[in-house]
Amino acid sequence: MFKCWAPYITLATGKFETMSKESNIIYIGRKPPMNYVLAVITSFNVPNTKEVVLKARGQAISTAVDVAEITRRRFMKELNVDEIIIGTEEMPPREGENRARNISTMEITLTKEAKPNEEGKAMQEAQAAKEK
Amino acid sequence: MFKCWAPYITLATGKFETMSKESNIIYIGRKPPMNYVLAVITSFNVPNTKEVVLKARGQAISTAVDVAEITRRRFMKELNVDEIIIGTEEMPPREGENRARNISTMEITLTKEAKPNEEGKAMQEAQAAKEK
Repeated sequence: MFKCWAPYITLATGKFETMSKESNIIYIGRKPPMNYVLAVITSFNVPNTKEVVLKARGQAISTAVDVAEITRRRFMKELNVDEIIIGTEEMPPREGENRARNISTMEITLTKEAKPNEEGKAMQEAQAAKEK
Repeated sequence: MFKCWAPYITLATGKFETMSKESNIIYIGRKPPMNYVLAVITSFNVPNTKEVVLKARGQAISTAVDVAEITRRRFMKELNVDEIIIGTEEMPPREGENRARNISTMEITLTKEAKPNEEGKAMQEAQAAKEK
């Protein structure tokens, strides 16, 4: 279900990048939810985008749900939660530990019905809210 | 979607009780995931139980996913994730704050095909794992 995530992890910090190069997938990490909300709105702003997938692991799963809910309720009312998938990924053991760790994963697929001229407004609002 | 949760919150600690009186609903709080895994297995152990719902809010959402995944992968292979619903709940403002807070919620519905004599074994295993 999850392809290799390694390229998106900044080694020094262990944090995920906000957006992958593979479009329409947003990896949720430790940044504040509003950063990712803006990324979702930006993704939907690209013409012909009807689907955005949020991917998260471990503690970031709660943030992913926050991102989906904030986007849907405050900025893009026409957004639907299409599918939620949970899973488990095996991670290499931490330094000094022997056992591989299992970590929970989640994918939230967001879809929308196309309505032009709505996203630009949503993006401005999100940007304003973030800057507050 | 969420009925009143207030009766299940211990006021002094703000923690949820592991199991509600309403059967088949398990409220996920801040205890270690294995406590809730055991509660899930115990619930399925009651005759004619085909469905258990995990409910969580905020940071406990990640724990709820952990509970579903651990139960499904380690103890009850015949378990299915039937439905996952996310939502938002409005909470009264904290002391000294003015605004109501929005908190994300999640419900995971677990179902299984009935296979007698499997749950007893799963429960013993879970208890042993918890005691380690």
